[in-house]
Amino acid sequence: MQQYDRNNIFARIIRGEIPSHKVYEDTQTLAFMDVMPQARGHVLVIPKCEALELTDMPQDYLVAVFSAAKKIIGAQRKVLHRDGIVQLQLSGEQAGQSVFHYHIHLIPGHIHELGKHESVAADQAELAQLAAQLRAELD
Amino acid sequence: MQQYDRNNIFARIIRGEIPSHKVYEDTQTLAFMDVMPQARGHVLVIPKCEALELTDMPQDYLVAVFSAAKKIIGAQRKVLHRDGIVQLQLSGEQAGQSVFHYHIHLIPGHIHELGKHESVAADQAELAQLAAQLRAELD
Repeated sequence: MQQYDRNNIFARIIRGEIPSHKVYEDTQTLAFMDVMPQARGHVLVIPKCEALELTDMPQDYLVAVFSAAKKIIGAQRKVLHRDGIVQLQLSGEQAGQSVFHYHIHLIPGHIHELGKHESVAADQAELAQLAAQLRAELD
Repeated sequence: MQQYDRNNIFARIIRGEIPSHKVYEDTQTLAFMDVMPQARGHVLVIPKCEALELTDMPQDYLVAVFSAAKKIIGAQRKVLHRDGIVQLQLSGEQAGQSVFHYHIHLIPGHIHELGKHESVAADQAELAQLAAQLRAELD
């Protein structure tokens, strides 16, 4: 397996070196808007640890990520008025993983209606507004 | 949210009322071949508890499901000779969920090359053989 790169984009977002539209944060996790969403309201949840993918995720961070995901799904359902939430994780470049820091996608929509992974950049103002709406539900 | 139906197909598989091509089992989880795979070697992992989807999954079962998934991903990589594994969970009918018992899909392949969810039934003999190969790696 490849080595964890401490300068991957998500590690830099955790360190605050790159801005993100933050939705949720606790001591072990961070959640923010995907800048190339596959549907409106697409959120990423990441652990604050050095894990490439599921197989090297420590149990406590895994629990923290999915606990955060449960809360965020509740907020997405309220803000997006969509009950269906697709949860997706890609392990390995051959699966389509492009950032090698474990992350789960929470995508409001139907599995057969999602946009292509990483194809269209969203409007930054819209992402900021959605992040604010989701944060308000999570407070 | 809808009520958990004790006669859903996965509950019946856990009780042994419906056969499955079993890949892995422990006290809290069961894994078996998806009979309508989106790629060769597509496995489902389910908890042995009454949970519709992620938001009502107890923490101990969530840990057990993902611990099983880690082992199975290792076996899939060896048997299928594919490094990329897509992990997918659908929450709610509007996301495409059709069996209302929490399950994670472990699909060897690229996110952009997967077959459609629940569209083509696999050959039962091939599923039995794949399950046997995966079990052998997990022993």
